[in-house]
Amino acid sequence: MIRIGLFGAGRIGQIHARAVSAMDKVEIVAIHDPRDEAAAYIQALTGARRATLLEIVDDPQIDAVIIASPTDQHAEQILEAAQGGKHIFCEKPIDLNLAKVRECVAAVEKAGVKMMIGFNRRFDTNFDAVKRNIKNGEVGEVELVQITSRDPSAPPLDYLKSSGGIFIDMMIHDFDMARYVLDDEIVEVFATGSVLTDPEISKIGDLDTATATLRSASGKIVTITNSRRASYGYDQRVEVHGSKGMVRANNLRGTAVTLANKQGYRSDPLLDFFMERYALAYKAELQTFCRLVAGQDEAYPNQIDGLKAMELATAAAESFKKGRAIKIGK
Amino acid sequence: MIRIGLFGAGRIGQIHARAVSAMDKVEIVAIHDPRDEAAAYIQALTGARRATLLEIVDDPQIDAVIIASPTDQHAEQILEAAQGGKHIFCEKPIDLNLAKVRECVAAVEKAGVKMMIGFNRRFDTNFDAVKRNIKNGEVGEVELVQITSRDPSAPPLDYLKSSGGIFIDMMIHDFDMARYVLDDEIVEVFATGSVLTDPEISKIGDLDTATATLRSASGKIVTITNSRRASYGYDQRVEVHGSKGMVRANNLRGTAVTLANKQGYRSDPLLDFFMERYALAYKAELQTFCRLVAGQDEAYPNQIDGLKAMELATAAAESFKKGRAIKIGK
Amino acid sequence: MIRIGLFGAGRIGQIHARAVSAMDKVEIVAIHDPRDEAAAYIQALTGARRATLLEIVDDPQIDAVIIASPTDQHAEQILEAAQGGKHIFCEKPIDLNLAKVRECVAAVEKAGVKMMIGFNRRFDTNFDAVKRNIKNGEVGEVELVQITSRDPSAPPLDYLKSSGGIFIDMMIHDFDMARYVLDDEIVEVFATGSVLTDPEISKIGDLDTATATLRSASGKIVTITNSRRASYGYDQRVEVHGSKGMVRANNLRGTAVTLANKQGYRSDPLLDFFMERYALAYKAELQTFCRLVAGQDEAYPNQIDGLKAMELATAAAESFKKGRAIKIGK
Amino acid sequence: MIRIGLFGAGRIGQIHARAVSAMDKVEIVAIHDPRDEAAAYIQALTGARRATLLEIVDDPQIDAVIIASPTDQHAEQILEAAQGGKHIFCEKPIDLNLAKVRECVAAVEKAGVKMMIGFNRRFDTNFDAVKRNIKNGEVGEVELVQITSRDPSAPPLDYLKSSGGIFIDMMIHDFDMARYVLDDEIVEVFATGSVLTDPEISKIGDLDTATATLRSASGKIVTITNSRRASYGYDQRVEVHGSKGMVRANNLRGTAVTLANKQGYRSDPLLDFFMERYALAYKAELQTFCRLVAGQDEAYPNQIDGLKAMELATAAAESFKKGRAIKIGK
Repeated sequence: MIRIGLFGAGRIGQIHARAVSAMDKVEIVAIHDPRDEAAAYIQALTGARRATLLEIVDDPQIDAVIIASPTDQHAEQILEAAQGGKHIFCEKPIDLNLAKVRECVAAVEKAGVKMMIGFNRRFDTNFDAVKRNIKNGEVGEVELVQITSRDPSAPPLDYLKSSGGIFIDMMIHDFDMARYVLDDEIVEVFATGSVLTDPEISKIGDLDTATATLRSASGKIVTITNSRRASYGYDQRVEVHGSKGMVRANNLRGTAVTLANKQGYRSDPLLDFFMERYALAYKAELQTFCRLVAGQDEAYPNQIDGLKAMELATAAAESFKKGRAIKIGK
Repeated sequence: MIRIGLFGAGRIGQIHARAVSAMDKVEIVAIHDPRDEAAAYIQALTGARRATLLEIVDDPQIDAVIIASPTDQHAEQILEAAQGGKHIFCEKPIDLNLAKVRECVAAVEKAGVKMMIGFNRRFDTNFDAVKRNIKNGEVGEVELVQITSRDPSAPPLDYLKSSGGIFIDMMIHDFDMARYVLDDEIVEVFATGSVLTDPEISKIGDLDTATATLRSASGKIVTITNSRRASYGYDQRVEVHGSKGMVRANNLRGTAVTLANKQGYRSDPLLDFFMERYALAYKAELQTFCRLVAGQDEAYPNQIDGLKAMELATAAAESFKKGRAIKIGK
Repeated sequence: MIRIGLFGAGRIGQIHARAVSAMDKVEIVAIHDPRDEAAAYIQALTGARRATLLEIVDDPQIDAVIIASPTDQHAEQILEAAQGGKHIFCEKPIDLNLAKVRECVAAVEKAGVKMMIGFNRRFDTNFDAVKRNIKNGEVGEVELVQITSRDPSAPPLDYLKSSGGIFIDMMIHDFDMARYVLDDEIVEVFATGSVLTDPEISKIGDLDTATATLRSASGKIVTITNSRRASYGYDQRVEVHGSKGMVRANNLRGTAVTLANKQGYRSDPLLDFFMERYALAYKAELQTFCRLVAGQDEAYPNQIDGLKAMELATAAAESFKKGRAIKIGK
Repeated sequence: MIRIGLFGAGRIGQIHARAVSAMDKVEIVAIHDPRDEAAAYIQALTGARRATLLEIVDDPQIDAVIIASPTDQHAEQILEAAQGGKHIFCEKPIDLNLAKVRECVAAVEKAGVKMMIGFNRRFDTNFDAVKRNIKNGEVGEVELVQITSRDPSAPPLDYLKSSGGIFIDMMIHDFDMARYVLDDEIVEVFATGSVLTDPEISKIGDLDTATATLRSASGKIVTITNSRRASYGYDQRVEVHGSKGMVRANNLRGTAVTLANKQGYRSDPLLDFFMERYALAYKAELQTFCRLVAGQDEAYPNQIDGLKAMELATAAAESFKKGRAIKIGK
């Protein structure tokens, strides 16, 4: 039996708790969240006890922690959990500050615990099939990758204020996806963006529409576009073009129904948001983490993937400010 | 708490048992199946006790039964369950013999219990959306319905021998679908068929390729085609054409991925078989039954729907033999 | 230089005249049509002289005739042209009366002239690709064919009155398509239909919605559905299912543009009608006829194809009246 | 009757000559090309006489010229034609040198002749429908545009050497497309690229894979990706995302046929190359030019569009060299 301590009883903490509840031989035994109501939901769902950070990391019965707390708590929880010898699942980003991310990665590696980062898209059937086609050689040498991510609408301004900005909060998933499909390290980032959906976003120094262009060591190119508004649902596409072919993950819809009339042929808008779109991916992700804790797998994606994506996001933000391409790893 | 007795621990019995296990306030308390191993699986899954037919129908703690046994046991189990005052969920067909079906329907109605028939496709999101588009008037007056059902491959010959033939075993779902989308009773059936996939099917007097044409009281027309072989997966489509438009439920695939190369654009074959294709429909179906037992819903589809589909299937078999259209309800 | 006499200056005569005008080494030298204005259009377009039936068939300079006159003139024109030694292109149907069709076929064969029937769909790129996939073995042994033809709206009642009814006027194309893709003769036809779009159609004894089921000598099955109303354009599909795969010709649209918004994803309705949908097919058809006249090709589809399609159409009409399947060729 | 002098009897000159041949009231009366065989083809097709540059621009019978010669001859021909008072259709780019382009534009405007640039994609039905959807308000305020252009394979190295490089030779069409759909001027360009298909392209200082990011005055963003290799055909897509919806022009294929089997569903690769893909667009473009010469239309796209696209292409090349965004119009 694997015993897990959960940090954070919010939306994403609940998703993970439900995923764990449906699995055999793993249970959430402790929940750490200052909010009584949220914590109570997890307790009712899992039978976990409520606990402080230290009670969890010091409990020798607990094998691992899931960190689904607000980003500004991640670093402390990672450092304590690593010191306590717990394996760690942590939501992205590790921290908004790149130096702090590096400190966490170092601590995890020093402690010899395993760490996995919540890049849930790697566990989506569709993106997985894209990757498999590349591995199988169907695409040949990858040349050009196009990643599109559009949210139906922006999160609340209060969330955005402490989110680190669109490159760290939203595009970080796409940076990880780029690395996932490329199998080649990024050496240069150019990014730009605008505020087109809501002037309030401008006031807090963030963007709602953004794009980045990446170059890999071997000259492969990736373009990423992000928007915080999409009238037709949650738009998540990846297209990989190579010497022998092109593979593309299209979007998912609620039904496979088409209506035809004088106006034309109409099919459903896209699945509405990330919880619906990635419902199965979240489950697969937690299953991988549990296999990892059980010693059956390598951590995937691990702390290095978390760090690299954060380096790209930070470089993108810098590129936007300076109006020029930023070299990575210098 | 709703308490259910389950008849039949085979493939479909297991599907229903797992669906019930995932629900709140309902449990399978007794399993009736002569096969030890199959019964043991259900017992382990649900904690049900093993029981005889009479032990189940006489147990005052039991509210309802799910009949997932071989077809030749349905009638006896229905008659006993009705007499015992249990609500009944029964897999299709009620019985291979139309007179027997009528006897069961009469018994159920006399006993005043509720009965629901396992026409799982009515609970599929896609066919449901087709129906909703019709109800909303998007299609106008329905004129022409095309139903396509193709299985990846034929069941074992032993199964086919006691299946009642393709019209009763396979096309019965399509007859129900026709009635579901039409909202008009069928008055005439013409059917024909062939053996094209396996000559053995001919030897047992069955068909593997079949088609039926139905006319409704108001002149609407339905064509149904069935095949026991489809190289590209489980093909299940409905297209409804009316005065204002056309609505169509297309098939489902494993991924939304496309690969393009010199040979063209390629997407996945279809989901492989009914358990995968209708996984969610089976759950929704059992939830409806549980609401029915709890008194919150009308039985849907009920014993009359079971009888009507069986009348159409029987007429189709007769039409094929006689080479002419058969009037219904005369 | 091939010299052609044209019978009929109406819509379809004009299509053929324009096709011929764009070709090298072939010209329309005479037009026979009692309507001055229509004939004048052809004269202006082609430089043809106006002529009587006999002037055309007796002119030793004329190699071939195109018969695009009303159906009730076809037989006389065919008989005269055959006697005059002219090769013949004739629009479908050869005649409404099956005995008369047989007389024409006999006359053509006796005269040793070549005859081609205007089954334009055989020259469509899409149906041609369907056929090619079958020939290449991609489909394996053909088992089941589904043909859908829906016109945007019914022709004027006056046209319908002398059209021979939906089986001869409209479904004849689908009977030919069935034979085209099957490569096997039809031995049995069942057909039925309704009047659902306009009660006036009922008064003249015709149908607007119809379906036929065909069986071939080797047990292959074809279903055809026809409607005189389709809100979303001219719907022309063929789907061929076989032991190894399925091939399908989908419809054509004006653009490849998709609009996505809250209501979903919308693409164009279908191309509006036969002249637009089959524009290129009509040209290819006439080019084949000219190669035929030049002695470079076998007639394709020839008078036998015209006769066979007519036999099926006649049997379908009889089946509808009698409510039973009709054997062919007995 | 409009009389046209044609400069250049190569591939694109022939396309225009054939387009003109099919039109009424317009003829090509003179052809200027040093290559005897190429010129002879045009003469045979159109009846044009062979002529020098000056013979054409000095001929008072000639209304307009079509410039389809190699790029390094454009400027001289434009300047002479403008001075001769001829209306001008010129293939893109006007010249490889931006100062020279400005000189040509000034000369055209001084002379008061009309000039149209061969941005053929503006005349494609699909891109036209994209534009119409934007104008109709279906997309709302445009926010993000994604343009994809992939050629099946690179032109010969000899062509590439004098082509001006990928930004001027290939991406210039996409810069014009960006301006076409945006209705807002571009103020900033960032571009990068690689050589991934053929190292020889690197030796001549060109790229085969390139991307550009544009920002408009109001903050709208455009990403363009180009590749000189696409195994699946000629890939030409535009996607425009706005506040109310998204509109997309997908690609065109040879047929609407799908083949399904164990491997999945397969449709045709894309139309092979620009002459096939834009066959109708080239005709529409020349018709517009002829209406322009007849005084019925404004030039569209005109010399300013040619200049602006060239400014963007030049800026892109500079951005790639400097690794930073380049401001436009400063």
